[in-house]
Amino acid sequence: MAASTDLHRTFRTQVFIATSLDGFIARPDGELDWLIQRGERAGDTGYDAFIAEIDTIVMGRNTYQKTQTFGFWPYEGIPVRVLSTQLDADDPNIIITRNTTELVRDLDEAGARNVYIDGGQLIQTFLRESLVDQVTITTAPVLLGSGLPLFGALDNDIELRHLSTTTLAEGFVQTTYTVPQV
Amino acid sequence: MAASTDLHRTFRTQVFIATSLDGFIARPDGELDWLIQRGERAGDTGYDAFIAEIDTIVMGRNTYQKTQTFGFWPYEGIPVRVLSTQLDADDPNIIITRNTTELVRDLDEAGARNVYIDGGQLIQTFLRESLVDQVTITTAPVLLGSGLPLFGALDNDIELRHLSTTTLAEGFVQTTYTVPQV
Repeated sequence: MAASTDLHRTFRTQVFIATSLDGFIARPDGELDWLIQRGERAGDTGYDAFIAEIDTIVMGRNTYQKTQTFGFWPYEGIPVRVLSTQLDADDPNIIITRNTTELVRDLDEAGARNVYIDGGQLIQTFLRESLVDQVTITTAPVLLGSGLPLFGALDNDIELRHLSTTTLAEGFVQTTYTVPQV
Repeated sequence: MAASTDLHRTFRTQVFIATSLDGFIARPDGELDWLIQRGERAGDTGYDAFIAEIDTIVMGRNTYQKTQTFGFWPYEGIPVRVLSTQLDADDPNIIITRNTTELVRDLDEAGARNVYIDGGQLIQTFLRESLVDQVTITTAPVLLGSGLPLFGALDNDIELRHLSTTTLAEGFVQTTYTVPQV
């Protein structure tokens, strides 16, 4: 087990992400064309209700840099922390943290309660360190064949508890699992 | 497009397979312990109804060799074809075929109507060659971190049509897609 499984924390963490049926969150170059086209026709994915309950967002460097291509800041009013050993950005929208231990301590001290974990590599890190409490995956009805994977290597199996599955428009299937903390 | 997309055929093909949430059909060494434990408690997965409608099974060499460890032949009474460039087995239960073109021709000539495509590498080959009509995936609520993947590289996106999703016992989620032949 990773050392940080012993981290005490006062907040819960949730993943809310879309993948292709073959488990990719983006094409190899980060493109989301396959998702955006379909997603616009999928109706209510529950994202608005989800984000309304979130008080803090944590993302990795890649995901942060992707937001910088949007031309607007999508998380106005929500504290955003970027976990990165390298990033050096002068951006009042974010707080940069260098490692997971520090991040958990900072979130506790800031009184975070409901934290959104975004970005493939960050999700993988958090899963490995037993820091994810709930995962909602919205699966698009397409195989891409290659791309950036949602999941990665683990030291041990992670058992999940199925909470709900809903079929959305356009053939999207959304399933929520909780991750029992052992 | 692969040349064999032009193959005419009189039969339809179906995949019916279980994966972990991270898309593995077996551990790296082929082990299914993670599935068997949970699967026994999952109740009716629809497999019996599925297999009752099948008139021919096609599998790859790895899957065939796995059946040889069972101690019994699980497909009594159903013609089984093994697609393999290498396999040389003296087994009256199977017919070995060396390539996809020959296989499709043989299935047509044998009057196959409803063909079960089994095994990860064979499924990948058939998907790449536009030879899969329907896919039923039963997802186990576990992340393995590594293993034999269900899906692989593709030349192009494959669009799927969502047919149905059912939640089974033990947190299994079963979704069926059809693959429109373009």
